Amino acid sequence: MITMMTMTAKYTMRTVAKSCQKGFIKSMPSAMRSLNSIKDDNSSKIVVSPPLVTLDLPEAWTPNSNPYQRLPPLNCSNEPTASVIDGKSIAEEIRSTIAREVRRMKKFIGKVPGLAVILVGERRDSQTYVRNKILACEEAGIKSIVSEFPEDCTEDEVLSALSNYNEDASIHGILVQLPLPQHLDEGKILDAMSLEKDVDGFHPLNMGNLAMRGGEPLFIPCTPKGCIELLIRLGVEIVGKNAVVIGRSNIVGLPTSLLLQRHHATVSIVHALTENPEQITSEADIVVAAAGVPNLVRGSWIKPGAVVLDVGTCPVEDPSCEYGYRLMGDVCYEEAVRLASAITPVPGGVGPMTIAMLLSNTLDSAKRANNFI
Amino acid sequence: MITMMTMTAKYTMRTVAKSCQKGFIKSMPSAMRSLNSIKDDNSSKIVVSPPLVTLDLPEAWTPNSNPYQRLPPLNCSNEPTASVIDGKSIAEEIRSTIAREVRRMKKFIGKVPGLAVILVGERRDSQTYVRNKILACEEAGIKSIVSEFPEDCTEDEVLSALSNYNEDASIHGILVQLPLPQHLDEGKILDAMSLEKDVDGFHPLNMGNLAMRGGEPLFIPCTPKGCIELLIRLGVEIVGKNAVVIGRSNIVGLPTSLLLQRHHATVSIVHALTENPEQITSEADIVVAAAGVPNLVRGSWIKPGAVVLDVGTCPVEDPSCEYGYRLMGDVCYEEAVRLASAITPVPGGVGPMTIAMLLSNTLDSAKRANNFI
Repeated sequence: MITMMTMTAKYTMRTVAKSCQKGFIKSMPSAMRSLNSIKDDNSSKIVVSPPLVTLDLPEAWTPNSNPYQRLPPLNCSNEPTASVIDGKSIAEEIRSTIAREVRRMKKFIGKVPGLAVILVGERRDSQTYVRNKILACEEAGIKSIVSEFPEDCTEDEVLSALSNYNEDASIHGILVQLPLPQHLDEGKILDAMSLEKDVDGFHPLNMGNLAMRGGEPLFIPCTPKGCIELLIRLGVEIVGKNAVVIGRSNIVGLPTSLLLQRHHATVSIVHALTENPEQITSEADIVVAAAGVPNLVRGSWIKPGAVVLDVGTCPVEDPSCEYGYRLMGDVCYEEAVRLASAITPVPGGVGPMTIAMLLSNTLDSAKRANNFI
Repeated sequence: MITMMTMTAKYTMRTVAKSCQKGFIKSMPSAMRSLNSIKDDNSSKIVVSPPLVTLDLPEAWTPNSNPYQRLPPLNCSNEPTASVIDGKSIAEEIRSTIAREVRRMKKFIGKVPGLAVILVGERRDSQTYVRNKILACEEAGIKSIVSEFPEDCTEDEVLSALSNYNEDASIHGILVQLPLPQHLDEGKILDAMSLEKDVDGFHPLNMGNLAMRGGEPLFIPCTPKGCIELLIRLGVEIVGKNAVVIGRSNIVGLPTSLLLQRHHATVSIVHALTENPEQITSEADIVVAAAGVPNLVRGSWIKPGAVVLDVGTCPVEDPSCEYGYRLMGDVCYEEAVRLASAITPVPGGVGPMTIAMLLSNTLDSAKRANNFI
């Protein structure tokens, strides 16, 4: 963060100096004038805007004092006001409809959808996610294959597996479980995936078509699609409403903000460098929390009556749980449930919807590939 | 707008009914319950989210009572507080640097950048924009060609010209002046353009790379790039600040919001369906107005001390002007100048920066094509 600030300051100082020398600003507030004495040593540069990638920063959210423990109850007698959104039941309903469609496809054209998953390394949370996806595929009658690679595998090994799946006509969706180990170039690997099989919808062309009016992405990323599906099924009005997306990851925050915008919400994106996240969020009718920071969103962030979707699934050590850890959301549930009109729990809220949407995208892809309606 | 509302209502009603039947919501606020009696006739649908293109709507802003006339002065004695941002001078400085670079390129490799413009129809404002771009090219030593087509030309004629320019090694940038007549498929025509020559940066792949962390668009769209360039040159802090973009066109609003976000602003996008645009805008440190509605942004929309960039250039009949019309911005200048810390005038603010950035993108493209640094 310090690097960024320094860089920005350098740019602004240089360029203000330049502007002032040329008399660009017809009158100038004192805050700007104070930088006037900095020397301009950059006169041959045509534009001063830095390349975008140099601006990328890790999302270093200011952590809560003790985010991993349950917070004490609010010092008030409010009873819960929120409906608990049962994502698990909604997802099950969707998955059973998908299973019916898969049987119909098999009956009429003798084929079923196929999903290939590439898993690198031994992150427990990634292993759990992949296991859940595979189980869901099996249950729906979708063929699935997992290619597992050790943490220290080479990029070429992953690219080679990807290339095979690109060519394999029985595979309609390919999924690279993120995050990848640091030594692998995530962008390069995702770029190598056939666009027609990118059921996660992470390709930049898909993202551009998601963003642009008139654009028709081949796939809508699963978690954002699951969030919108929840809102629509619950009868939450989206058009014109204030929606705040907390977090701006390529996987969740960014596509969720773009999708809400296509649905005509008025979207604000809050991130780790936002100066007043609490105030901005507290004006939202719809909050999608996707920062990955347990208990980031306190009760004071929630407008009474807001609909709150908690995408956070931070694994926290807990020996009493089946796999040795439990998942914690971004939202302080105990507080938010007293203010929101509807809220997703963690687990059992958005998570199951993500898997259901993955199956839905895989089925859509298989139908498209086989021209089956 | 009515069609959209009806459609949304239909979706929400159907799906709320479905949710209720299945007991998805563990408790339900009365507003949701009231829709409970609607019949579910859509049970075989897997996801209820509609296709995104079906959601697209014309941006029908509520017009001001008499937007085309100058408003009466505010009923207060406030003096102007804002620095007037002299986009014309800043753009001239940038263009003269570009001209130096073009001369250097010619000297060392014997080549100059080339820009081809496709202009369809006889819109006066489009003709003026194209004329200004060509004049700017000539002044900078950039070769330029204009292909003009009548209003009723066929798509194939335009596509054929585009294809020729795609192949022509002396052309490094191609620009299709928008808007095109309704009978031409804008998406299809823009898709046919070589990505390496899309100096407007309107291709979905470019837009996706602009949106995504780690993405490196080949070109940043000219108006958004010009806006950021102004902010940086003026020493306006962007990181963490509240920025509101008014309007969400593919050409200006959308890419400006994405670019501000890459620069770490906290961005909100206000559009024609936003319920409370005045309130949201009045909390912004940086306002970019790109709705194309004269005088939409009144003084009450502006937070004292905000920086205001007015992208609006609505042509309004005025026989006293050289070409029979004058350009009006989205911002009620007389009011905003009393509140903002800095503001762009119309004309002479963002407009000249757009042209300068077009030349900059064309030069960058020529350098890339010729491997010239």
